[in-house]
Amino acid sequence: MAPLPITFLSDYGLEDEFAGVCHAVIARIVPDARIIDLTHEIRRHDIRQGAAVHARAITYAAPGVHLAVIDPGVGTSRRSIALRTAEQDRLLVGPDNGLLLPAARNFGGIAEAVDISYSDFRLDPVSSSFHGRDIFAPVTATLAQGASLREVGEPLDAAELEDLDVPAPRVGSRNIEAHVASVDRFGNLTLNVAGSELAGTGLRLGYPLCVDAGERSVEVHFARTFAEVEDGRLLVYVDSWGSLAIAVNRGDARRTLNLDVGDRVGLTPLPSPAIIHPR
Amino acid sequence: MAPLPITFLSDYGLEDEFAGVCHAVIARIVPDARIIDLTHEIRRHDIRQGAAVHARAITYAAPGVHLAVIDPGVGTSRRSIALRTAEQDRLLVGPDNGLLLPAARNFGGIAEAVDISYSDFRLDPVSSSFHGRDIFAPVTATLAQGASLREVGEPLDAAELEDLDVPAPRVGSRNIEAHVASVDRFGNLTLNVAGSELAGTGLRLGYPLCVDAGERSVEVHFARTFAEVEDGRLLVYVDSWGSLAIAVNRGDARRTLNLDVGDRVGLTPLPSPAIIHPR
Amino acid sequence: MAPLPITFLSDYGLEDEFAGVCHAVIARIVPDARIIDLTHEIRRHDIRQGAAVHARAITYAAPGVHLAVIDPGVGTSRRSIALRTAEQDRLLVGPDNGLLLPAARNFGGIAEAVDISYSDFRLDPVSSSFHGRDIFAPVTATLAQGASLREVGEPLDAAELEDLDVPAPRVGSRNIEAHVASVDRFGNLTLNVAGSELAGTGLRLGYPLCVDAGERSVEVHFARTFAEVEDGRLLVYVDSWGSLAIAVNRGDARRTLNLDVGDRVGLTPLPSPAIIHPR
Repeated sequence: MAPLPITFLSDYGLEDEFAGVCHAVIARIVPDARIIDLTHEIRRHDIRQGAAVHARAITYAAPGVHLAVIDPGVGTSRRSIALRTAEQDRLLVGPDNGLLLPAARNFGGIAEAVDISYSDFRLDPVSSSFHGRDIFAPVTATLAQGASLREVGEPLDAAELEDLDVPAPRVGSRNIEAHVASVDRFGNLTLNVAGSELAGTGLRLGYPLCVDAGERSVEVHFARTFAEVEDGRLLVYVDSWGSLAIAVNRGDARRTLNLDVGDRVGLTPLPSPAIIHPR
Repeated sequence: MAPLPITFLSDYGLEDEFAGVCHAVIARIVPDARIIDLTHEIRRHDIRQGAAVHARAITYAAPGVHLAVIDPGVGTSRRSIALRTAEQDRLLVGPDNGLLLPAARNFGGIAEAVDISYSDFRLDPVSSSFHGRDIFAPVTATLAQGASLREVGEPLDAAELEDLDVPAPRVGSRNIEAHVASVDRFGNLTLNVAGSELAGTGLRLGYPLCVDAGERSVEVHFARTFAEVEDGRLLVYVDSWGSLAIAVNRGDARRTLNLDVGDRVGLTPLPSPAIIHPR
Repeated sequence: MAPLPITFLSDYGLEDEFAGVCHAVIARIVPDARIIDLTHEIRRHDIRQGAAVHARAITYAAPGVHLAVIDPGVGTSRRSIALRTAEQDRLLVGPDNGLLLPAARNFGGIAEAVDISYSDFRLDPVSSSFHGRDIFAPVTATLAQGASLREVGEPLDAAELEDLDVPAPRVGSRNIEAHVASVDRFGNLTLNVAGSELAGTGLRLGYPLCVDAGERSVEVHFARTFAEVEDGRLLVYVDSWGSLAIAVNRGDARRTLNLDVGDRVGLTPLPSPAIIHPR
């Protein structure tokens, strides 16, 4: 039987051999493993950005083993875990620091969780600083071969898992209070509100709205594409992930608004007349 | 039957999950797909550089499906296309902005073209900003499985395709007028003239020539290897792609000559005596 | 029979298509090749760093063909070589500039060596600047298919191979004289001394020592993890490769100590009382 497909996301970067060695460890156990690198360039230790990117990226991947490692707590008492999702039986492997939970929620939450910190499948010895290689990669490989969670770890109550401190959005009839979920390399800001949640909010495509970011309030167009606003102008749009997002046409919204992952953003529809925009 | 091999080139970069998600989409459709990443670090929106790199890179790859995405026009009315080359039946997939044409010309031109903008194999929904994931990747996967062009798109007249505005070189008996086809990360400038086209031009290995770049004229040696000139000195040479190229030994010719992709370069043989160079 | 697995390390970077084209060449010869990219971001021409990273990385990979290309001498008379290790019959392919020797030593040294500069399996023509594509990749592919060294090159006396000028460490009872073997992107300095070599040196976990680096002498703690010292403080520790290493907690030891690959470092135990550190 073909092994389960594997996806791999981390903040290891590509300058060093860290991600490559994890590949080597997996391939040594499962020679015909298929590993898709989602990205290894998540900003170092940025668990929230990594969690948001991971959660949406794996919705495009076949069910399999989804390895994610952003691990500022490596070498401390933080647990190593593997999870099975309620829908599609996807298997998630990584540190117990909240990184895996948004991905699990995208598949109905957690059906089963195990602590793999002392898994029989760890490499020996286990270093104190590279659990990607020593714990996560070999457990991922073993799961890809068809092992059950119980075979690779000790049962764990999912309620005990660490979660991220990410406030839920408040979608009201007069305004939306959202937070920045992730930022891409162009400085486009993805918010934690889906475009599909806007019914009844007064926010409408082609109409202006007010964006509150820290101490600044800016009037912005709700556009379909970047080209609908002038170069250097802010826009709000539904991005390719289906999320509400803020960008600057040929510019960098992160810098323009001085916003980063986790920051609060208020969105209020404005009563102004519709702006005619080219289609 | 094994799927056709796939190559993949883009300007998505590796910081974000864009290229990784395209891999995931392809692997979901063709679990045993083999995808070779040529590079994802083409400078953003630099279609000419991407086209030149793609055209030469795939000559080293087995015939298969060659996916290339540099797509400043995504979300506009630009078409998505798939092409079959006259020689070797290579399949090219990407936006209709000229990116694919130099690659097609390396294989005898276009035998068949289809518009895949509304392909039955698109993901649903199709976003307005990430056609790599939503159109190009699934069509690439479907072609790798053995589908014909007619199955994935609507027939298109190849004469209608967008082409690049890249002037042809003029290779004369007294001088050559070329253009910069691509630049690598070291600032080495590849010109759109092959080393094999120099017969009768007066340009000879080991002899000096005059390079005209913008307002500057510089005397340069036509060398076989970088080591034949001093550190910091310009040289003209035939690069590993068989093209005439300009470099600075242990330096950066792009900066030294203030040249970039598309810029004009004149090359004139000089009557000076041969320079003795070490072999 | 499945081809031998391949690992690949280079300083080609990922901006250009160099590494991707080597993949393409290998896959054209061996369509079902499995290639693990260890890293392609070794600092340009840094043979010593590349050799150290390669030697330790492949100990985690299955035996196979291990391709490494850091090749400042390409186009000169330096040989291209393939080696077989005494233990595990691993095959190493790359330039004859010392790059492969530390990896060979990790597997009992060299059992067999061949000169592949004129291998029958080279591409034709061979360029003067891209032997990764023209010589190393096709020979790697041929070896992965099961060819013997004798089939891909001419026998060579291993004693004739170029070696690196890396001084051996001196591990004494009162102090250690080591050298920096590699530096990662965080500026952590790995020394050429294993943690297992410290018996009898007086260096003990939890105790202070004196680090001599160039003209500076600094008192440093020998810690188990970064978290045992304050932010910004130097520490000595055994890293995930089992080597003695120097770091700054949330900082950059390379910059702090102005040290780089190949530099000498002295380590002397200090008589001070044990430091109580949290576990």
